[in-house]
Amino acid sequence: MNISVLGCGRWGTFLAWYANKVGHNVCIWGREGSGNLLQLKENRKNEYLSISEEIKLTNSLEDAVSFADIIIISISAQQLRNLAKQLLLISKVQEKIFVLCMKGLEATSGKRLSQVFKEELGSSTNVAVWLGPGHVQDFVRDIPNCMVIGSENIEVTKTVVNAFNSDLIRFYYGQDLVGNEIGAATKNVMGIAAGMLDGVNYTSLKGALMARGTREISRLVRAMGGNDITIYGLSHLGDYEATLFSPFSNNRRFGEDFVGERKFTKLAEGVATLEALRNLSKQYDVELPICNALYEVIFNEKCSEQTLLDLFLRPVKFEF
Amino acid sequence: MNISVLGCGRWGTFLAWYANKVGHNVCIWGREGSGNLLQLKENRKNEYLSISEEIKLTNSLEDAVSFADIIIISISAQQLRNLAKQLLLISKVQEKIFVLCMKGLEATSGKRLSQVFKEELGSSTNVAVWLGPGHVQDFVRDIPNCMVIGSENIEVTKTVVNAFNSDLIRFYYGQDLVGNEIGAATKNVMGIAAGMLDGVNYTSLKGALMARGTREISRLVRAMGGNDITIYGLSHLGDYEATLFSPFSNNRRFGEDFVGERKFTKLAEGVATLEALRNLSKQYDVELPICNALYEVIFNEKCSEQTLLDLFLRPVKFEF
Repeated sequence: MNISVLGCGRWGTFLAWYANKVGHNVCIWGREGSGNLLQLKENRKNEYLSISEEIKLTNSLEDAVSFADIIIISISAQQLRNLAKQLLLISKVQEKIFVLCMKGLEATSGKRLSQVFKEELGSSTNVAVWLGPGHVQDFVRDIPNCMVIGSENIEVTKTVVNAFNSDLIRFYYGQDLVGNEIGAATKNVMGIAAGMLDGVNYTSLKGALMARGTREISRLVRAMGGNDITIYGLSHLGDYEATLFSPFSNNRRFGEDFVGERKFTKLAEGVATLEALRNLSKQYDVELPICNALYEVIFNEKCSEQTLLDLFLRPVKFEF
Repeated sequence: MNISVLGCGRWGTFLAWYANKVGHNVCIWGREGSGNLLQLKENRKNEYLSISEEIKLTNSLEDAVSFADIIIISISAQQLRNLAKQLLLISKVQEKIFVLCMKGLEATSGKRLSQVFKEELGSSTNVAVWLGPGHVQDFVRDIPNCMVIGSENIEVTKTVVNAFNSDLIRFYYGQDLVGNEIGAATKNVMGIAAGMLDGVNYTSLKGALMARGTREISRLVRAMGGNDITIYGLSHLGDYEATLFSPFSNNRRFGEDFVGERKFTKLAEGVATLEALRNLSKQYDVELPICNALYEVIFNEKCSEQTLLDLFLRPVKFEF
């Protein structure tokens, strides 16, 4: 099949590399002036991997869309609505299958990314999400993982899974779009919390974080109409190794550097997700103590160490 | 209060140290000829910590029992039935509160440790369990954690929590003895699996292990009459950091050394738990694919790498 990947950061470029590896014709799109695209054009490689000469590189969105049967999107979550508005101007865009490979929520509204996308492109748009654990640094060393693809239409889900399943990535059908999208976005928030615990030398509290974090998000998913067990699957708990423990996790490193008062320059999507969760907590009337504590530390300059200790060592007597 | 700790291994000695630290009069019992007790008598310390001169040391079980209001037990799980038979011979033993600080199941029967204990000492025995995350190496450096104490009698639970709660260990009331005991024992099995994944360089699959492992044990707990959500609390998922990720975890190291064909000499309680789970899987007619795969690798010499890959990368399409 013909696959376009919109976005050429670490993850987008990996997805193009992977699509090519499993036998597809691939095109990568980067916005006008993208430094990442320029680097790929010049060297056919980035910090993490080299891409085949067969992969097309373009900054024409129209060319990238018309080339492909399946269009993968991997850009900053907060840019998705703008990109969708641009896509709407391209002919036959509604005939394509879109796959959102991003873990975030719209900060200003709390909306899920598939919601945002359909609001702009129409509710009949074929859109799937591709979520779950896995770091580029592991995949390129041939270390396999399990991931999840989901949509509101099982035929779309099956088409995407069939296109991308391999011995390197084993895909599962996602059965709960709400739970999987919320789960994927919020695992980044737990990654920030884990990094903060590492940073103040309370790594051992990451166990309690895992138990409490999953519970907190599970309650939110249920309130939003999703299945509260989804959080314990690949998109959230299954991504905790990669997010709460891996040195490659941007969100974990953001948290660790934040409490160490070092500036971390890479994107930590979990920060925007905290803003979105502030909205969702109010909309659905669900208490989110961990998310709320992180918000206070990052946006309102509350002391990180004391806030974390209060969170885990406060006198709550019953677990559930 | 007067507290006796039966058992003087790493964990038992820590519990005595901790009970003394929070203000109790403490006695440690070790069996006749115990090398650990001898070391404590000679040096008042072991590999991990030093104990106060105030702590009594004895190998008279009768003295240890008569001294105490609360008796903590921390020995090898497979020795509990024998110890209980000895305790039965001591007068007024039924007036004491016993706290089992062990994470295991009886290998030959699959029985929970509180069941084993009550079978020997009578069903009206006051017995609680003390479970959850925390390594001696962290606690002695003043790094706090959250743990859980549970029993079938909330008054007993409250008495034990009130006796031991502190800023170093924050206790929660366990509300599901079946789920907490099964959860605590089986987290060791997941620790062995994690170590094997580390050993064959598939650390990234520990994410999928967390998602699948919790699900598998949750199904077992439900079949046994417990609450299937307990597994996602402190006694199981909350102990994953300490068990699946910590270098201090004996069970993780056992798994890593097993696939590396190195001999690991410390007790890995998870190995006996695998035998117990073999029994429970049959008794309750619940499939336990991860536990079963580990059993085949450890007891039937199946190839660890291929078995692990088959487990995580087999073509299962739906997550739940």
